[in-house]
Amino acid sequence: MPEGAGAGRRGAMNAPSPLAPAGFPDLPSIGGLRMAVAAAGIKYRGRTDLWLAEVAQGSVAAGVFTLSRTASAPVEWCRAALGSGAARAVLVNSGNANAFTGATGASAVRASAGAVAARLRCAPRSVYVASTGVIGEPLPTERVEASMDALVADLGAAGWRESAQAIMTTDTFPKGAGARVGLDDAEIAVAGICKGSGMIEPDMATMLGFVFTDLAVAPGALQALLNSAVQDSFNAITVDGDTSTSDTVLLIATGAARNRAIDDADDPRAAEFGRVLETVMVDLATQVVRDGEGASKFITIEVSGARDDRAARVIAKAIANSPLVKTAIAGADANWGRVVMAVGKAGEAVRRERLGIRMGGVEIAADGRAVDGYDESRVAAHLRGREIHLAVSVGVGAGRARVWTCDLTEGYVRINADYRS
Amino acid sequence: MPEGAGAGRRGAMNAPSPLAPAGFPDLPSIGGLRMAVAAAGIKYRGRTDLWLAEVAQGSVAAGVFTLSRTASAPVEWCRAALGSGAARAVLVNSGNANAFTGATGASAVRASAGAVAARLRCAPRSVYVASTGVIGEPLPTERVEASMDALVADLGAAGWRESAQAIMTTDTFPKGAGARVGLDDAEIAVAGICKGSGMIEPDMATMLGFVFTDLAVAPGALQALLNSAVQDSFNAITVDGDTSTSDTVLLIATGAARNRAIDDADDPRAAEFGRVLETVMVDLATQVVRDGEGASKFITIEVSGARDDRAARVIAKAIANSPLVKTAIAGADANWGRVVMAVGKAGEAVRRERLGIRMGGVEIAADGRAVDGYDESRVAAHLRGREIHLAVSVGVGAGRARVWTCDLTEGYVRINADYRS
Repeated sequence: MPEGAGAGRRGAMNAPSPLAPAGFPDLPSIGGLRMAVAAAGIKYRGRTDLWLAEVAQGSVAAGVFTLSRTASAPVEWCRAALGSGAARAVLVNSGNANAFTGATGASAVRASAGAVAARLRCAPRSVYVASTGVIGEPLPTERVEASMDALVADLGAAGWRESAQAIMTTDTFPKGAGARVGLDDAEIAVAGICKGSGMIEPDMATMLGFVFTDLAVAPGALQALLNSAVQDSFNAITVDGDTSTSDTVLLIATGAARNRAIDDADDPRAAEFGRVLETVMVDLATQVVRDGEGASKFITIEVSGARDDRAARVIAKAIANSPLVKTAIAGADANWGRVVMAVGKAGEAVRRERLGIRMGGVEIAADGRAVDGYDESRVAAHLRGREIHLAVSVGVGAGRARVWTCDLTEGYVRINADYRS
Repeated sequence: MPEGAGAGRRGAMNAPSPLAPAGFPDLPSIGGLRMAVAAAGIKYRGRTDLWLAEVAQGSVAAGVFTLSRTASAPVEWCRAALGSGAARAVLVNSGNANAFTGATGASAVRASAGAVAARLRCAPRSVYVASTGVIGEPLPTERVEASMDALVADLGAAGWRESAQAIMTTDTFPKGAGARVGLDDAEIAVAGICKGSGMIEPDMATMLGFVFTDLAVAPGALQALLNSAVQDSFNAITVDGDTSTSDTVLLIATGAARNRAIDDADDPRAAEFGRVLETVMVDLATQVVRDGEGASKFITIEVSGARDDRAARVIAKAIANSPLVKTAIAGADANWGRVVMAVGKAGEAVRRERLGIRMGGVEIAADGRAVDGYDESRVAAHLRGREIHLAVSVGVGAGRARVWTCDLTEGYVRINADYRS
């Protein structure tokens, strides 16, 4: 792999996406959490590329990971670490994915986790590690280790924005979200950061998400909460259907809020917390879509009337990943025939004679055929905007799903066809 | 649906694809087959848009069709017609797909088939119908019927090239292929035409293929031959992973060669004929890829070492449909990390530590990691050409597959994002 692979074509210094939020939000602090960043020079110059989050003893972790069959060494490490559910730290570097690096990849993860564990006096397996950046190049662990003393000494110095910036690769803006929720007599905080320009660009744009809360909760209940919230947030976004080798979402609870602990997922308070958690995760996940490479429009796709929610999701993803639907929307073209095509290719049950399509609230097709004389000018006006809404009903059952994606522009091709060097 | 939908952005008059063959081939004539074309004015002006192929009594048909759950009315008609296996004619129009047209779509097919059947004095169910063009607009059957007398009177006047031209939509060149094979003492001819710019553009670019032979063969054996040949030809191509509502491949045998009839698929002569049939169908199918919208490179992807051939196909298609792989190749970028990503997301068994990747014959990765000091200049030189070869081995079993695709260029986005009107 040549030097410079993946670098340079789209960096943190680029102009923010036209779909970026107005600014970085104010986020609650989390009791029991301290953060630090460092510029370790792993690949980038003049910016931070290492983030350490330390959590109090007794913290518990939950995680979900890429389904890729070529998952990276850090993903494998985290999967194993989750066996205990205990967490003391998260270490993330940008600039190198430590993926497809053979046996040296696994030893690099061990070395990094060990360097943190030695300083925090904890078990290496309670240190979670994530890496994002170039594939196929060995991680320069000596640079990580050289920054470790300063990083630990700085714990508490970095806020959410600095943390979000340190883990960026091709991202054009730092991504954060948070919320508070009252539970019993306690006030619970949830906040997190993420990075990614979609499930795109395995070189540099792995999707990573880290969410923290001060909720007191058992590991099993926490994992159930994450599994549920990820389904309609990070698993409901797509930029181009490509999946990184390193996608990781961790949810860590410190227990500092001292609520009566949630011991199992059936506790009604878990559902209450879960709704807030999902809101935060949807916020984070849609920011990834808003930073999709070349994106000029943010698209919400809602499918109803499918056999079940799973089938609705499959149909919605088929629409969201169709290059023809995405290019039509890029061109503000109300080309609903392509939506019919995408629904058909999804392979799920559809009653063609009941199929209905709306764009921007305007009914375009109903009962399996075009609506005579529908107001195309209203649809065209909607499609010239930045926030696009597409609703499809397939007339089979009560299954529903919502997914988010962006359009496919010449900018996407230009960014991704640029020679790496 | 507005007038002009789908028209105008890329027509038969456009410059041929840079990947087009040098010219239309010389194809054998088929005993028992007569063809005619007409300019019915269904949508286009100044070009033919209707093709009729009449075959001798006793001819038999086999067919394969789109798996779309929103299949068009002509596809449904053909599926039913195949019940008998008998064939007397094929009628194809371009300019209108007769898809997503509700109940009027089905009656339009009945009317067209009936108009042919009345003149050829045959059962309507022995007339196969295909339509390609705009989705969602009623087929103007009166224009089809108005051309019918002239079309029947002209039977025998059209050759392969004229026939291939009449069924074009966004195609930039007419597509044909053929071969001869000796069987017993008979000389068997196979020839066919197809149209399509990939499984792309449901407006205008359905994939249709029509292959004829003078082989004497039973319907069941013919269908088995088609099922087998389509697997490694039309089912092994992809342009963008989108699937038309109308994809159709028909194989019709007139029996005029008077070979000792092949009654079942286990006849060793069936395998012999099948190899030639597959060659012809691969030729046709790859011409569709060579006419992929915006395509600048023709890509052959070979996967080996998968659990079985089906798994190898899934992995090869995941690579072929990855926007990141396709844009990298468009940019002549030896970005093999994206191939690793695509292999991983396919979901099939892979031994990561055995994964190997070659481009243009140069070994880039082996045993799950980059080959130290591989000659990237040779790979870059290969990728600057028009014919790209990518081989991936996944180290699990003996499964193999080969698929063909094209690159994803800014031209693809430009063509498909253009407003229809």
